[in-house]
Amino acid sequence: MRMYDLIFKKRNGGVLSKKEINYFIKGYTDGDIPDYQASALLMAIYFQKMNECETADLTEAMMNSGDIINLNAINGIKVDKHSTGGVGDKTTIALAPIVAACGVPVAKMSGRGLGHTGGTLDKLESIPGFSVDMAIDKFINNVNNFKIAVAGQTANLAPADKIIYALRDVTATVDNISLIASSIMCKKLASGADSIVLDVKTGSGAFMQNIDDAFELAQEMVKIGNNMGRDTIALVTNMDQPLGNAVGNSLEIKEAIETLKGGGPEDFKELCITLGSYMLLLARCVETVEEGRRKVENVISTGKAFDVFKTFVIEQGGDVSYVENIDLFPKAKGVYELKSEATGYINKIEADVVGLAALTLGAGRETKESVIDLTVGIVLNKKVGDYVQAGETLAYIHYNNDDKRKDATEKLKSAYLIEEASRSKSPLLFGIVTCDGIKRL
Amino acid sequence: MRMYDLIFKKRNGGVLSKKEINYFIKGYTDGDIPDYQASALLMAIYFQKMNECETADLTEAMMNSGDIINLNAINGIKVDKHSTGGVGDKTTIALAPIVAACGVPVAKMSGRGLGHTGGTLDKLESIPGFSVDMAIDKFINNVNNFKIAVAGQTANLAPADKIIYALRDVTATVDNISLIASSIMCKKLASGADSIVLDVKTGSGAFMQNIDDAFELAQEMVKIGNNMGRDTIALVTNMDQPLGNAVGNSLEIKEAIETLKGGGPEDFKELCITLGSYMLLLARCVETVEEGRRKVENVISTGKAFDVFKTFVIEQGGDVSYVENIDLFPKAKGVYELKSEATGYINKIEADVVGLAALTLGAGRETKESVIDLTVGIVLNKKVGDYVQAGETLAYIHYNNDDKRKDATEKLKSAYLIEEASRSKSPLLFGIVTCDGIKRL
Repeated sequence: MRMYDLIFKKRNGGVLSKKEINYFIKGYTDGDIPDYQASALLMAIYFQKMNECETADLTEAMMNSGDIINLNAINGIKVDKHSTGGVGDKTTIALAPIVAACGVPVAKMSGRGLGHTGGTLDKLESIPGFSVDMAIDKFINNVNNFKIAVAGQTANLAPADKIIYALRDVTATVDNISLIASSIMCKKLASGADSIVLDVKTGSGAFMQNIDDAFELAQEMVKIGNNMGRDTIALVTNMDQPLGNAVGNSLEIKEAIETLKGGGPEDFKELCITLGSYMLLLARCVETVEEGRRKVENVISTGKAFDVFKTFVIEQGGDVSYVENIDLFPKAKGVYELKSEATGYINKIEADVVGLAALTLGAGRETKESVIDLTVGIVLNKKVGDYVQAGETLAYIHYNNDDKRKDATEKLKSAYLIEEASRSKSPLLFGIVTCDGIKRL
Repeated sequence: MRMYDLIFKKRNGGVLSKKEINYFIKGYTDGDIPDYQASALLMAIYFQKMNECETADLTEAMMNSGDIINLNAINGIKVDKHSTGGVGDKTTIALAPIVAACGVPVAKMSGRGLGHTGGTLDKLESIPGFSVDMAIDKFINNVNNFKIAVAGQTANLAPADKIIYALRDVTATVDNISLIASSIMCKKLASGADSIVLDVKTGSGAFMQNIDDAFELAQEMVKIGNNMGRDTIALVTNMDQPLGNAVGNSLEIKEAIETLKGGGPEDFKELCITLGSYMLLLARCVETVEEGRRKVENVISTGKAFDVFKTFVIEQGGDVSYVENIDLFPKAKGVYELKSEATGYINKIEADVVGLAALTLGAGRETKESVIDLTVGIVLNKKVGDYVQAGETLAYIHYNNDDKRKDATEKLKSAYLIEEASRSKSPLLFGIVTCDGIKRL
């Protein structure tokens, strides 16, 4: 087999066989196939696409390129949740204890990454003492004993994906549905869950800005998951404005704690309840989504979910007094109030712009070496659909540096669209994708 | 400027500016742009094409990446001829002295290369003593004194093209008209001719197998040449069967000598006359192609062209006795006669298959290191349109190795299509492309 022939075939619209895809992934991971041939193939794939079968084969080959985590020692059906990422997305922090409180084991491995804010791991580490470093034995024991553990990704998951993504990133071959879907799914599949609930975000703050693309990606990933024998569904959700009010690491964990205690912003709470009910359904813990919803609402209102969260924090070394009293979290040097210059309805808060403002303040990583400032960020005081008077506070900017604050303020201002008339608000949940197809709401 | 943005722009169907193209060519030649980004761009170009302006800019940038030969010291209008290559193409060997004999200076620099047989240089070196190594001064003096010199390419012509072609060759990005046209033309332009006659071959033995593609390539090159201020025309000619009868180095030079003496195969002679008359036209040596034709026929029939050839051979160190008596050329060990198994009309002799048979015998280079066997090759005894009886000789196989001879025989057999009824024969010349457009014949 020659890499040239694979490129030529795909370039001419041919379908790559499983053998050919395995040859490419193994050869490229082993360093036998040069970057320039890999990038030519990726560009040919960009133009000629991959069919369902090729996409599944690519996912499987990338999954098999590294470690595959075995979670068989954990009792029960393990359901994982994956979000394609957005601004203010602290969902895992609230959702994991909610689902665990319903009796479903949550064994979560997370990576860090670049972004407007840190990831789930960084946010959890805002709690002093909290550690995500643990051996696989302790990880499994914790899940069996307390139904929940969150660990840093130490295993060598899908190294093929890592190098291919790095290449796509510099050759303008990122945005192809098959390549995106296989990149996400190979890591999910390698991390050992039995069932997967995907939260595919769409809107200005999401990777998939277009709703049809989001549904296409969701369908592609659901197909891959089910083809690989994992019960997989996807929800396509709104990321036109930030999720919840807080954007920033310790600000977000405080918001997640409030939500676990029954408070928190409406949209964020609703997303947790919806995702949670589908996770319970896939775990066979309930028979209908409605039953799942009631169960989730129950563990929140009775405080059971919050109790599980506290146990989880203690078991992973965190100082639970911070969880019990969120005022203990270290604060940024100053809080600047962004006032509205206009009077009218907030018809837009561009999520990506808010994210960029948070990044400017120091909340996220611009390079792998960046040190995150856990205290800074933005808390929205108004959201889309709200009426605002000139002079009212739109958002609070938590900052440690005046120049950065000024820069972030300018950015944040430009995120708002305030108009006399209100526009119809888009829903939180656009639809559900299962192996039976797409159900738009 | 970032290479990523160029890839992204072209991938999305954008038009690259002159600045961007210069940035790519300079950066890639200097080693600042990595192979994997260059190959991604080339694949994007394959799918999205380049317009006339981009193609011209690419050609100019590649031309400027190395030496540019200055032929101003040569008196008169220097007309170069370039063939896109085919099987049995010994045209330069006969055409150069013909044109020189008409008073037009021929300053030819040739490269070697991979192919079914050697190139013009290898064929000329079949004449004992003949050398293509000469300093630029001697080269120019020879052209001024004798109207003709052929030198090996010692200058560093268009190094950008060299590395880009090598990359295209392994990434399935060779067959794009703009890339092919610019690759050919940047070297032609750098080698300093005032006017260029292109022989674009089409058919089974040519790079352009499809006639419409050949016209497209011809038009693209003619546009580039004229845009760069060189009078350029192209003839699109037939390469469905080998040109002439001989395929192989010394076999071909013997055929070229016979043609210079007024003999030779009809199709080869006709091509030399046609190309020659257009070269005279571009050199302003004649006013019409018809006048050029008469002039060319005259220098052949009067022996003037052959005399110029002899002078040329002597001036470049060759033993002219071989030219005067072609029986002196060393011969292969054996000559095998391929007999026809069928009776009927020869409707096809696949040129590429004949070429492959010659390569099998050792007539060409498979790798840069291959040593060419100058004596071996194939001489056709019948051509397309001829009637043949079973048992009659189709071709003579000149060989030095029995195994290779057997292998070549099997290949050569498969090149023939012999049928009861004769089919219409395609013409030698399909059309002419000038800056005024395409004229199909």
